[in-house]
Amino acid sequence: MLGSQIDEKKGTTILWCPSRLVQSPRMRVDLNADVGEAFGSFTFGRDDVLMRSITSASIAAGFHAGDPSILRRTIRAAKSAGVAIGAHPGFPDLAGFGRRELQVSLEEAEDLVLYQVAAVAGVAATEGVRLQHVKLHGAFYNMAARDRALADAVVRAIVAVDRSLVLFAPGGSALLAAGRAGGLTTAAEAFADRAYENDGSLVPRGRPGAVLSDPVIAVPRAIHMVRDQAVVVADGTSLPLGVETICVHSDTPGADSLVSALRAALEATGIDVKAIRQP
Amino acid sequence: MLGSQIDEKKGTTILWCPSRLVQSPRMRVDLNADVGEAFGSFTFGRDDVLMRSITSASIAAGFHAGDPSILRRTIRAAKSAGVAIGAHPGFPDLAGFGRRELQVSLEEAEDLVLYQVAAVAGVAATEGVRLQHVKLHGAFYNMAARDRALADAVVRAIVAVDRSLVLFAPGGSALLAAGRAGGLTTAAEAFADRAYENDGSLVPRGRPGAVLSDPVIAVPRAIHMVRDQAVVVADGTSLPLGVETICVHSDTPGADSLVSALRAALEATGIDVKAIRQP
Amino acid sequence: MLGSQIDEKKGTTILWCPSRLVQSPRMRVDLNADVGEAFGSFTFGRDDVLMRSITSASIAAGFHAGDPSILRRTIRAAKSAGVAIGAHPGFPDLAGFGRRELQVSLEEAEDLVLYQVAAVAGVAATEGVRLQHVKLHGAFYNMAARDRALADAVVRAIVAVDRSLVLFAPGGSALLAAGRAGGLTTAAEAFADRAYENDGSLVPRGRPGAVLSDPVIAVPRAIHMVRDQAVVVADGTSLPLGVETICVHSDTPGADSLVSALRAALEATGIDVKAIRQP
Amino acid sequence: MLGSQIDEKKGTTILWCPSRLVQSPRMRVDLNADVGEAFGSFTFGRDDVLMRSITSASIAAGFHAGDPSILRRTIRAAKSAGVAIGAHPGFPDLAGFGRRELQVSLEEAEDLVLYQVAAVAGVAATEGVRLQHVKLHGAFYNMAARDRALADAVVRAIVAVDRSLVLFAPGGSALLAAGRAGGLTTAAEAFADRAYENDGSLVPRGRPGAVLSDPVIAVPRAIHMVRDQAVVVADGTSLPLGVETICVHSDTPGADSLVSALRAALEATGIDVKAIRQP
Repeated sequence: MLGSQIDEKKGTTILWCPSRLVQSPRMRVDLNADVGEAFGSFTFGRDDVLMRSITSASIAAGFHAGDPSILRRTIRAAKSAGVAIGAHPGFPDLAGFGRRELQVSLEEAEDLVLYQVAAVAGVAATEGVRLQHVKLHGAFYNMAARDRALADAVVRAIVAVDRSLVLFAPGGSALLAAGRAGGLTTAAEAFADRAYENDGSLVPRGRPGAVLSDPVIAVPRAIHMVRDQAVVVADGTSLPLGVETICVHSDTPGADSLVSALRAALEATGIDVKAIRQP
Repeated sequence: MLGSQIDEKKGTTILWCPSRLVQSPRMRVDLNADVGEAFGSFTFGRDDVLMRSITSASIAAGFHAGDPSILRRTIRAAKSAGVAIGAHPGFPDLAGFGRRELQVSLEEAEDLVLYQVAAVAGVAATEGVRLQHVKLHGAFYNMAARDRALADAVVRAIVAVDRSLVLFAPGGSALLAAGRAGGLTTAAEAFADRAYENDGSLVPRGRPGAVLSDPVIAVPRAIHMVRDQAVVVADGTSLPLGVETICVHSDTPGADSLVSALRAALEATGIDVKAIRQP
Repeated sequence: MLGSQIDEKKGTTILWCPSRLVQSPRMRVDLNADVGEAFGSFTFGRDDVLMRSITSASIAAGFHAGDPSILRRTIRAAKSAGVAIGAHPGFPDLAGFGRRELQVSLEEAEDLVLYQVAAVAGVAATEGVRLQHVKLHGAFYNMAARDRALADAVVRAIVAVDRSLVLFAPGGSALLAAGRAGGLTTAAEAFADRAYENDGSLVPRGRPGAVLSDPVIAVPRAIHMVRDQAVVVADGTSLPLGVETICVHSDTPGADSLVSALRAALEATGIDVKAIRQP
Repeated sequence: MLGSQIDEKKGTTILWCPSRLVQSPRMRVDLNADVGEAFGSFTFGRDDVLMRSITSASIAAGFHAGDPSILRRTIRAAKSAGVAIGAHPGFPDLAGFGRRELQVSLEEAEDLVLYQVAAVAGVAATEGVRLQHVKLHGAFYNMAARDRALADAVVRAIVAVDRSLVLFAPGGSALLAAGRAGGLTTAAEAFADRAYENDGSLVPRGRPGAVLSDPVIAVPRAIHMVRDQAVVVADGTSLPLGVETICVHSDTPGADSLVSALRAALEATGIDVKAIRQP
């Protein structure tokens, strides 16, 4: 079984981690980006280029970004690129791109997720595509990552729509725990283009150094994430953290070349880059 | 079979149309209103009262009005009142309440309907309710009623989501014809609270006399619609027009008492008031 | 001078506070409401009735509520009712009616106030009316009341537009202090229809008992506010707090009758009810 | 007087139009672009580059695009680049970028212009800048160009805010005529990056060939516009049309290099490129 995985790329792997090679099956990771985040005539990111390198796409649902026509075109583009699709629900804050914390009640949070996942799933179904996952956006994601009650509300909504959906959530977060408790399959997510605090949370945007756009820095960090299931944090140490999917944001400067470099480097390191639900 | 229908209310019927009574089965009509059209803290109409008298509810999907929490609460209220549910997609024009004509491409029109019907159907499903129908809102409804290409785009979207959905459209309209051609069940709709032009189109809002809120005028007109499958138009004549469902707008002044008077009058006239899909 | 003020209403006053009557000039207070808070076809409050009893109107500027046509009509209505006008800037959150806290940078806060005050002042000028005051709305008001840096940003914006504008702010708040430090005339505001925490902040909406709509409770509290420059707080004690203007929210149930009862009671108690800038 | 204008660039001019050179003063034109049309995190155009070449900037007011922070930053950038500033009011249609025709009443049209011009003028004043002009955006511009009643409503609003404002409008349009009739200074505008119908109206966007982005085609057309006060239309003939200001849209592909090429070519042709109000 293992033997069948040995190929030219595997040769490279041996240089990095020979002991692991013997004992464990080939490592794998999903590479995701948030896409479909334009709005009307307003542009955002370079989805067309990103689609060539990612394996999963989280598609904006129209609340923090996206609109019905962009949603549908993005689903078609992902399908045609063989990229797995997820819903990417955000706060109803177009002006703030869903990156501002918003006080919502648990009921509102549940309703926001319900509506957005239902819309994306429904439109995807008409294109003959079934959703793989749900990933919250921006401030909603960060708030649910640390607030279990909010996370439970989000999970209730996802379960209500389709309990076979995979929940993307930060490794070790309240959101990941809520997903598991609610019976969802989860995928621990880390960010190749973001700096981490010592506690494993993201350095807030706007803080200097919060966004990492240089492939020379970001790529080795990401490979470390997958190989060692850990993330380098602010003080330079490495914090153990599950990493099953790695995200690059489409508005990170040079996101398209970062993603393509990252994919090449992961594969050159012997890591399979595959969607979560891909066999 | 007919005999079993004779009751006290039927006595009244005989005064109106004895020959029809003998030959035909009991007449029926659906009574609908557009609901869930509030937004956030903004109010619109008196859904709670309307729900007591209508048999079908067209629920706003968040584009001309409505939001995820209002949508979900309205679905629950309709379910608990035994009222059949439909999606009510509108133009993305909250400021104009979807009542302003908007130039949209055929592709945009299709995408707008697809997204909104998918969202409402999905949220309804999580509440254990299956959609009965789709009814366009405001300017979208009026434009599709007269523009066959636009109507075809709308129908394509509905068929893509669920071809068992009933399409509400004006009797004799391009939209009704498109629905039939596309394989949808249709229900011809007339408005109890609106004046009609000689050609069977609605007198535009804002024109004096466009909205009829006085039950003394609106109720007999509606009974005429059902009994004679015709509508009284501007010049006072009666224009033959299919009428399977009658609408009252929730923002017509006194809509709640108009609907309750209308239901009572319809039933007192021997007309069954039932949702389209109700046996 | 004092003698000329003695009239039938003053007779009532003596029953309440005879010592003060002898030593001090006649008390006065401004009675304000937030108006123009509808949006497009969506309704909010009963401005027409409120206008008969208030002396100052804070008019929504289009971000949490209001639109250009509602703004202009409301300015005209206030002018014709002899009510002083203020700008009522809010967070850009129509869906949450500006009542949800929103993370904004100091620069964004300043820009939001600048834009909204400029718009309302400009439209008012075309109607021949000069703004009296500025009052922040909802969560923006509450956040600036406790955050001096945010309050300073708000004050910078107001000063930039017109340094003669009066700033409405809670008695004892960081916002009031920022206004004074920035050279603005201020008016300490209290709420007749809201319960107070022991520290003088408002009990958050949504908490039971946060909104007081019963005139039997609200009116005596408001009279106490004016006469004693103090507010009754959660533990039943009275907290000294400057009160130069009293607000009733237009969406408090029965707001119109509460305001009219309040005005009558204030005047019956010998308190002059006048706009801040009215001589 | 004329002698003093002869310089090296004038030498080039002689090759084009020697007879005109002798009889008339040096030709001039304003070069404008619509800027500040991003929204929140969404990008639109390359204002920074455009600002180096244009002489007038029409700044979005927040309805079809723009927000308070973008507005203020754009005003500052224009001021610092020595570019004259105008307000650029659009329809309240962020999703359609104000490029969809919207049915608005004359009163709504007036209110929309009033609010937006007041806001931009007010914010500009706080930056120490006085508005030079007003230019409608997109569908609003096109509708007012052909509908005199709508144009009159627009002009009433501009006059109400500041009757010294210059109105940008298509040469020969109802809007230009309404501006003159209302007592406004006008500047006839033509588009370097758009194709024209035979009647002098713009070929609608979306039609093939509607947008001209190739400098090789667009620049000579623009020079013809200024030199001959005429525009080349669909059938290849030249239609006489006043041209005092030339616009390039910021979302035309390659707009930044088109504008810079256009400015260089105009100046190389001996045409002064100056803002309308620049002496």
